[in-house]
Amino acid sequence: MSKHFDLIAKDKDTKARAGVVHTMHGDVETPIFMPVGTVGSVKTLSPQDLRDCGAQIILGNTYHLHLRPTEDVVAHFGGLGKFNSWNAPTLTDSGGFQVFSLADMRKINEDGVAFRSHLDGSKLYLSPEKSIEIQTKLGASIMMCFDECVANPSDYSYVAESVERTRRWAERCKTAKVDNGQLLFGIIQGGVYHDLRKRSAEQIQEIGFDGYAIGGLSVGEPNQIMYEVTDSVTEHMPEDQPRYLMGVGTPEDLITAIGLGVDMFDCVMPTRNARNALLFTSRGKVHIKRAEYTLSDDPIDPECDCYTCKNFSRGYLRHLYKSGELLALRLNSLHNIHFYLSLVKNARNAIRESNYKEYQREFFEKIKII
Amino acid sequence: MSKHFDLIAKDKDTKARAGVVHTMHGDVETPIFMPVGTVGSVKTLSPQDLRDCGAQIILGNTYHLHLRPTEDVVAHFGGLGKFNSWNAPTLTDSGGFQVFSLADMRKINEDGVAFRSHLDGSKLYLSPEKSIEIQTKLGASIMMCFDECVANPSDYSYVAESVERTRRWAERCKTAKVDNGQLLFGIIQGGVYHDLRKRSAEQIQEIGFDGYAIGGLSVGEPNQIMYEVTDSVTEHMPEDQPRYLMGVGTPEDLITAIGLGVDMFDCVMPTRNARNALLFTSRGKVHIKRAEYTLSDDPIDPECDCYTCKNFSRGYLRHLYKSGELLALRLNSLHNIHFYLSLVKNARNAIRESNYKEYQREFFEKIKII
Repeated sequence: MSKHFDLIAKDKDTKARAGVVHTMHGDVETPIFMPVGTVGSVKTLSPQDLRDCGAQIILGNTYHLHLRPTEDVVAHFGGLGKFNSWNAPTLTDSGGFQVFSLADMRKINEDGVAFRSHLDGSKLYLSPEKSIEIQTKLGASIMMCFDECVANPSDYSYVAESVERTRRWAERCKTAKVDNGQLLFGIIQGGVYHDLRKRSAEQIQEIGFDGYAIGGLSVGEPNQIMYEVTDSVTEHMPEDQPRYLMGVGTPEDLITAIGLGVDMFDCVMPTRNARNALLFTSRGKVHIKRAEYTLSDDPIDPECDCYTCKNFSRGYLRHLYKSGELLALRLNSLHNIHFYLSLVKNARNAIRESNYKEYQREFFEKIKII
Repeated sequence: MSKHFDLIAKDKDTKARAGVVHTMHGDVETPIFMPVGTVGSVKTLSPQDLRDCGAQIILGNTYHLHLRPTEDVVAHFGGLGKFNSWNAPTLTDSGGFQVFSLADMRKINEDGVAFRSHLDGSKLYLSPEKSIEIQTKLGASIMMCFDECVANPSDYSYVAESVERTRRWAERCKTAKVDNGQLLFGIIQGGVYHDLRKRSAEQIQEIGFDGYAIGGLSVGEPNQIMYEVTDSVTEHMPEDQPRYLMGVGTPEDLITAIGLGVDMFDCVMPTRNARNALLFTSRGKVHIKRAEYTLSDDPIDPECDCYTCKNFSRGYLRHLYKSGELLALRLNSLHNIHFYLSLVKNARNAIRESNYKEYQREFFEKIKII
């Protein structure tokens, strides 16, 4: 066991595991879902809301924070978790994903990526060293290596090249990291090619990091492919380090991937969908703006004990949404985040009781009701 | 003393009073500020937020609720205070003010006002009977008489006519009201003309209501005129009934008008300004989006103990606002509402100690610092 991760339970029938990640800002029980706080705030939610939902760690986006308010401002306030008053574990991504998905006019070479800000078009540059420099100033509990995110689909030869570049960049990230208590996770690439994933997993582990992430999935490939790749990659990941499936996913994805041995997840889906009136429940999705809910006295989810479900009817929530009230966005976000965090909390409990297969079965049975 | 209002203290040096309004949904200590929840929700704030700020009663707008979700939907859920889960005293206005300020193509005659919805242009009609019918279904603790809001400035003869119409409409409102435990307040009009105000006050009292409001102020007249009219109208208002100055105002207005004998206030200013980054503090206004706050570790107001001031720096709040984060609007609103409710709470305490003049003096001295 490494000093920053304790594996405390393994399910008997699946690859599911329960553990604890120890960070300089506190412990994180796994499996865990990490709400995304792009510019430091998980949209519409306060730190108190997040704690009430059972959040243990939140994510910040390096690309966005670099643009605004800049890493120097965040550093002035003592780092991300103090700046936003979360005062608990945080994780920053490397900025790579946003450079490849948001920025304009990007040019990649061996050293790094030149691009233009999506906000004002200004010229910017990210490299492994620059990403680590920014992330060090942002001061999150966990940093991520700067990697290349290849488009999906990409052909084998390009992905193979990219795996090599990801390895070289990972080495540079490790070299650039200072010894200040922050953890640094490596990222395994390789697209949908099992042999490249295996190669990348081995290369990244050889460099040696505090945890390992699976990058480059949930980028448009079919679910079944994502599950197959995840299943095969976790075979090549060390047991005594946390495993993070980046940018995933739906409730179904989480419950499946936990069974494949994944410990950590992040996704904008619960908050973004909430702002679009799409709510997750134990019995499937609810589109809260539908007219059928106008007179509904029911909560969003009768099994949910979040503030929204304990206090508000579908009828009132529909009215708020239809009237364009900002409170709707918050109450919806609160529910969706609570739903995701309850899923992983219940998963942890099931794994500790070595009962994860039954938990999965019940989850899929119920969610198919609607 | 009437059974629904207890006057519990009178200041020795000013006309300030402290009391308690007893409603079917609970007690309200006066002087009080009522946050405005136009369509049922005080924008960005949950009922828990409002309670944490010290709110005792919130206002709903009859015009807006009539359009959306309609009074029948609100009635289905058991009335406004149950629909929005506030579960405490509420007040609805008559719809008159919005008809005169928001609606299109209005035509007023002796019976009522025909107009078109500002949302979809549909033809609508409000009269004293219709307003009371809607407000009865909305089920607020306190209803308001349907009155004519004259434009400012209006000449003496038009205002004199309007005072007579307001009297006739008030009689019809009283007749239309059913005996279901809701309180009904009369509204005194008369523009800026002291003799018309006196006449209106006498006429409305003669009909007899559960409380009396001063309408038609804070509509563009100079502050000094508003204070003079308020001072003269409270001379003609009964001591044993609550007094409500509608649509007022700034912190300075509240502190002044409390000294003139007013008990209740409502205004969108704290919430609307919050959404525009303008924050109220004991030392004057703070424009939180200013660059000077980029690195500020200070809270909005060092004397404030609201959630926002206890947890967030001006620097972080500026960042949230500049980044367009919805959390900024809520944290700002929370602070401004807390500020207003602290002002009236401290005023109540000062009046109970018969020390209101000193409280006023200190308030104005401090707020002039900036």
